Amino acid sequence: MSSLGRAQIHNDAIIPPVKAVSTKYNTVTTDVIDKLRSALGEENVITDKEVIQGSVNSQWSYLVDLPPSVIVTPSNTEDVVKIVNVARDNHIPIISRSAGTSLEGHCSAESGGIMIDFEQRMANVLEVYPDDLQVRVQPGVKWVELNEHLEEIGLNLFFPLDPSPGAAIGGMLSTGCSGTNACMYGTARGEWFVNITVVMPNGKVMKTRQRAKKSSAGIDMTKLFVGAEGTLGVITELTLRLAPKVPTSVAVAPFDSIEDAAKGVAKVIQSGISVNCAELLDDLAIIANNNSGSTYKKYEEKPHIFFKFAGTQAHMAEDAERTAAIVKEFGSKLEYAENDDEAKNLWEARKWGLANIASMVPNSRIWTTDVCVPQSKLPTLVKQIKSDAVEAGIYAPLLSHCADGNAHFLLAFKDDKEREVVEHLVEKMVERAQALDGTCTGEHSVGVGKKHHLVHELGEETVRALWTLKNAFDPDNIMNPGKLYPDIDTRH
Amino acid sequence: MSSLGRAQIHNDAIIPPVKAVSTKYNTVTTDVIDKLRSALGEENVITDKEVIQGSVNSQWSYLVDLPPSVIVTPSNTEDVVKIVNVARDNHIPIISRSAGTSLEGHCSAESGGIMIDFEQRMANVLEVYPDDLQVRVQPGVKWVELNEHLEEIGLNLFFPLDPSPGAAIGGMLSTGCSGTNACMYGTARGEWFVNITVVMPNGKVMKTRQRAKKSSAGIDMTKLFVGAEGTLGVITELTLRLAPKVPTSVAVAPFDSIEDAAKGVAKVIQSGISVNCAELLDDLAIIANNNSGSTYKKYEEKPHIFFKFAGTQAHMAEDAERTAAIVKEFGSKLEYAENDDEAKNLWEARKWGLANIASMVPNSRIWTTDVCVPQSKLPTLVKQIKSDAVEAGIYAPLLSHCADGNAHFLLAFKDDKEREVVEHLVEKMVERAQALDGTCTGEHSVGVGKKHHLVHELGEETVRALWTLKNAFDPDNIMNPGKLYPDIDTRH
Repeated sequence: MSSLGRAQIHNDAIIPPVKAVSTKYNTVTTDVIDKLRSALGEENVITDKEVIQGSVNSQWSYLVDLPPSVIVTPSNTEDVVKIVNVARDNHIPIISRSAGTSLEGHCSAESGGIMIDFEQRMANVLEVYPDDLQVRVQPGVKWVELNEHLEEIGLNLFFPLDPSPGAAIGGMLSTGCSGTNACMYGTARGEWFVNITVVMPNGKVMKTRQRAKKSSAGIDMTKLFVGAEGTLGVITELTLRLAPKVPTSVAVAPFDSIEDAAKGVAKVIQSGISVNCAELLDDLAIIANNNSGSTYKKYEEKPHIFFKFAGTQAHMAEDAERTAAIVKEFGSKLEYAENDDEAKNLWEARKWGLANIASMVPNSRIWTTDVCVPQSKLPTLVKQIKSDAVEAGIYAPLLSHCADGNAHFLLAFKDDKEREVVEHLVEKMVERAQALDGTCTGEHSVGVGKKHHLVHELGEETVRALWTLKNAFDPDNIMNPGKLYPDIDTRH
Repeated sequence: MSSLGRAQIHNDAIIPPVKAVSTKYNTVTTDVIDKLRSALGEENVITDKEVIQGSVNSQWSYLVDLPPSVIVTPSNTEDVVKIVNVARDNHIPIISRSAGTSLEGHCSAESGGIMIDFEQRMANVLEVYPDDLQVRVQPGVKWVELNEHLEEIGLNLFFPLDPSPGAAIGGMLSTGCSGTNACMYGTARGEWFVNITVVMPNGKVMKTRQRAKKSSAGIDMTKLFVGAEGTLGVITELTLRLAPKVPTSVAVAPFDSIEDAAKGVAKVIQSGISVNCAELLDDLAIIANNNSGSTYKKYEEKPHIFFKFAGTQAHMAEDAERTAAIVKEFGSKLEYAENDDEAKNLWEARKWGLANIASMVPNSRIWTTDVCVPQSKLPTLVKQIKSDAVEAGIYAPLLSHCADGNAHFLLAFKDDKEREVVEHLVEKMVERAQALDGTCTGEHSVGVGKKHHLVHELGEETVRALWTLKNAFDPDNIMNPGKLYPDIDTRH
């Protein structure tokens, strides 16, 4: 953040004072339940505590999500309008949930309230525009299923954002997601979301823009919702841009050190080679792979980069050759997959990284976290964190989208005492990333888990601006309260 | 826009009533001038009317920009803070100007006020981060000069957004620009702006985020300013992402009709070929080129697409071969450039399109406008507009970024009467684009020229949301008033 930003304190009055978080909400009474039932039909309002508890999915998160008071399953935008109106009129929080694979407690009902579940009845592909490379979907559609659907109907198109295989489009936009494909296709911050339909906190419906591939007609309101974690409105429809499918091939390169690996991949990227993915696994992750037996071969116990190239056969062959020459400069030797089966098998090491690592530490839970730094700072960051983990006695293998400077550490803990040590390690990791001009999260987003890091990372003025935005659109703070926005004293 | 959006009128009170545009400002008094002089130094405050009039550059626009009362030339963020404080304390508008190449009156001082000119002293490259593919610049840096600078210091990197050759980075972000490279690299809406430093209307300085390539730490406040046309704050620094330079080659293909051309290019894009640019010139634009003698050869008088491919030699050869096979299906024959000189010469037809067209109609002015539709709708749009122009007796050649569905029509007029006819044509053109799910502007943005189209295009709720944003950050409406936001009655 800018030190200047902190020094300039002038005429606060011009922006209305930022409100503190509203923490008092009404409880969901039988009267409220009745209103929801009459709006949506009996069967779409779930109040059974066991069913609700069973729907709170935090299997991949170190956090245990708190259950809402009621779950509703709307089928369209009109239903959502009714829900929002009931919630607002009764001052009850709304939590939107599309698949619940997020890792930082985004769907936790911190203050109870109404959870809108899109997985049940709003997970439909509404319209495909093959000639425009676009598709219109509901928020509960999972990206894996969308891509399967596009293949089934015979299109050579796909949606390239690839976070958790279980993730759905609504949450993917709302967390500003990315994944292994970000190296070539960018992230949810880019141009993959053409427009969205949103039910605003006041119950009105906004469609952010039309369907032209590009537009410079003012501020793109779609962008306001990317990474907003459901705190500004409820998204009910999304038009996505699709990419043409391009053949890919896989190759792998071992390196003596993370530094060599990071420098090697940087040079590959800078040379303009069409790298679809560049995934770095450290020695610990490689050992976990070897131990699992999930790949044909066992790898040397050192850091490896798994490359995916994209293009025609000739193009990929050329790219692989150029890559081989570059990684050789950094003491490595590129091993190609000879055929599709081998490529698939090579990629298993990356694909099952998390599972392989988990199987190394039975009876443990894994705290999966991510930080991101400018690419050149990745070796420094990884070195620092690995040293911190060794010192703390915590098993902490690395999976990294290394061309993006994005590092996932998977920290194992088996009891409350180790959990505390891991929590401390994550705090330190974030501080180290921020000190390297990086961020507390490259792709998992903020939720409840990382909001306390934002003031230090973004500076007070940016956090004030976030609150200004929030207060302007959701003055009663009914949309997913307790997430993203740090509690700050804004009366300076 | 969503018809639903219009039907849902419920509980307006939740969002504070949207204010009407503040049209009354104070004049720039000698007291104000003195304050600016004491803040910036005598030589950085320009009050000479002739100099001011000379600085108001609208040579490419059909609009005549109105001059401000005073021009100031700050050198850094601190200077801009002082200017903003003087402006706000005295309720005087601020107009930011980086190069003044915009076409819709963005820098017109509709209500007088202080123009901040970045071209004089805030046009510096501040820091290059070669290993992170990033550069930090001031808003007055022109993209052409930035790319020359990167070449001079020996880097194989460039900034790919390419609007008008005279455009500067500040205006490029603020108008949500793009250009011929958008086909491969996307637009200013994408991920090219890593972070920005902004002096907010309250005089505080906000840096939107850190320098990691990607971040999911909440809403990216950078995006708020893309396409905001200087109406939310004054941008003083920008960190940009750079792309590796990749060799390019040029080929050209004639088509019997715009429809064949549009279908051909769509199929080329969908096949995953690495098309850097795909520029469509209609028969009128081709005739203008032939007439100018700027290319070695004369082209057949029919629509042509000029392709630019990117990649290694082998890659481009393969792409060109695949493209040739595809365009053949649509009755065309791809002609390649054999060498760099030929490629450069082939591209001249596109590069000098505007100048060639202007030379066809001496003693006329050109009204350059742009609309954008989903790709599949481009033939319909072009057919309609060309027919409208013929009917109105207006010379209206087409230059189109056809892979993006983006059409520039260059409408010639020689007197007030013809100007009126052209104005009517542009209105009709926008209506036609909007009816095809398109936008009033694909890359020129709104300014004063197109703001009256936004309600119809985006719907009332989206326009209300734009105003909510504006009022939240600039409650006194001192930042570039009269631009972008349509005057609406928001008391429904």
